[in-house]
Amino acid sequence: MELTEDGLLAAVRKVLSGAGPDVVIPIGDDAAVVRPGSGDLVLTTDALVEGTHFERAWSTAGEIGAKAIAVNLSDVAAMGASPRFALCALTLSDDVDAAWAIEAFGGMRQVCDEFACTLVGGNLARGREVTLAVMITAEVAPGRAVRRSGARTGDALVVTGALGGAGAGLRCVRRGAPWTDPERDAMRRLVRPVPRVGEGQALAAAGATAMLDVSDGLAIDLHRLCEAGGVGARIVEAAIPVHPAATLADALGGGEDYELLAAVPPEAADVAEEELRATFGTTLTRIGEVTDGPVVVVDDAGRERPIGDAGWDHFR
Amino acid sequence: MELTEDGLLAAVRKVLSGAGPDVVIPIGDDAAVVRPGSGDLVLTTDALVEGTHFERAWSTAGEIGAKAIAVNLSDVAAMGASPRFALCALTLSDDVDAAWAIEAFGGMRQVCDEFACTLVGGNLARGREVTLAVMITAEVAPGRAVRRSGARTGDALVVTGALGGAGAGLRCVRRGAPWTDPERDAMRRLVRPVPRVGEGQALAAAGATAMLDVSDGLAIDLHRLCEAGGVGARIVEAAIPVHPAATLADALGGGEDYELLAAVPPEAADVAEEELRATFGTTLTRIGEVTDGPVVVVDDAGRERPIGDAGWDHFR
Repeated sequence: MELTEDGLLAAVRKVLSGAGPDVVIPIGDDAAVVRPGSGDLVLTTDALVEGTHFERAWSTAGEIGAKAIAVNLSDVAAMGASPRFALCALTLSDDVDAAWAIEAFGGMRQVCDEFACTLVGGNLARGREVTLAVMITAEVAPGRAVRRSGARTGDALVVTGALGGAGAGLRCVRRGAPWTDPERDAMRRLVRPVPRVGEGQALAAAGATAMLDVSDGLAIDLHRLCEAGGVGARIVEAAIPVHPAATLADALGGGEDYELLAAVPPEAADVAEEELRATFGTTLTRIGEVTDGPVVVVDDAGRERPIGDAGWDHFR
Repeated sequence: MELTEDGLLAAVRKVLSGAGPDVVIPIGDDAAVVRPGSGDLVLTTDALVEGTHFERAWSTAGEIGAKAIAVNLSDVAAMGASPRFALCALTLSDDVDAAWAIEAFGGMRQVCDEFACTLVGGNLARGREVTLAVMITAEVAPGRAVRRSGARTGDALVVTGALGGAGAGLRCVRRGAPWTDPERDAMRRLVRPVPRVGEGQALAAAGATAMLDVSDGLAIDLHRLCEAGGVGARIVEAAIPVHPAATLADALGGGEDYELLAAVPPEAADVAEEELRATFGTTLTRIGEVTDGPVVVVDDAGRERPIGDAGWDHFR
């Protein structure tokens, strides 16, 4: 790469949203300065590491940048919050040129724009592998963020969209063409997940007592929600919305779906389902209920069996 | 590493500050939720990458964690802001164990505590090299953040502490023992830089018109300040506070010193100098002045020569 860090930053700045009424000092100074609203601040960070979370042979730079923002917006969505500002610390390896970095920032910008978030800062460093560490600042009305821990016995367990698509997509990418239409959709979900930001706010408004995003597979994430709340769950195998290209195992353990799993008061589940369909075109599926027992799944023959917490864990 | 990601996060959580009156939801949920003050928000991110910014053979995990926070606090200091919250996305390679990660978070915690900042969130991922991407949220009175761009002709140019120490320290680390006392101090500055947070606030209060932290060497950072403000500078070679283990070349091009370079109205320079000495025990040195000409240095014989903008640039 012929560019200097300052030169690359100047080029990157051109693709960024830069100033807005709430941006006092945009990218280009030692730090960005922004004007917050009156709510609580929601802060999150998540990194995509080459080889672990993406391969440059599978995704364009724009897609990788977009995914780095999307997975962070998914955490914001799981709190029921509104995204405001994003930062990205980008590490580039020697075989990545300036055009790649600029395209990656372009992908970030695109998703930020889509969710009314402003990319206000960045950092560039050299390393042996490409890493995109994104941080998002979001806002939520004071005291209204939805935790993982509030589920109550009797709440309905609901999940947005379909599960297992990203896991199936990974298999399809590795296998190669030909692909069916559902398989192409599954690969798209892997490469370019859509954060459920509006859906998370709607679920929060509907009274969700606990929520998280399904990033590591339904099994492990359901265990997390139950553990945080000191509750159990009974879900119905046949009710799990499995992506048409995926298997039940993908849905339970595939990871990277970035759908929302929430506990909602039973009387609110139908209303929330209707609202998500009408407003976002997103299905909301009731998969079971919160109990005071263990975490179990009921199969088609009516038998209960425990769900293992085997999901995607980067440290296994 | 035998631990799962959840297990490691649980262990890390124990070394973190966690809740305080301004932390609504601490680390452990999808995102942290905090209560901001009434000022502008200052957002910054900076990453340390193994091999580029540190070597595990040179620094303890605690020192590396501490430096990751310190270099970000240095950017906050350069805006004259007060640190509030920190996040870290940590990427670990296979040869790093859980104890290393926990010690790194311990080092982060220590520096955060020192500067009244709360470490509220983190993320763990696997990769081929260790990377620590930190984001800091800070606050500053509305409209009072000090930019890089406000320097005016006639302003005094001042710098905190001594320059070139980190560059000299790097040479000493590579050369090996024996080391003199100044050399040991220089290595300490490389491994464990001290952000000038209080000093930055004091310089802002004294009316600094432009400020940045000297992270890439005085030459390139002075050029940045001048370029941002559309001004020039004349600095006096003999006035540059060179670290006792360092050379003038280290001060101009060594990088990683994390001292502050500021332009202040000439009548404020002496007051600021006295205040920094009295309050923080930090020297403030007047090295020259802002001009409407080129960026030059005056040598001992009174000759002016241009300062190249050769500093530390990760992309060269």
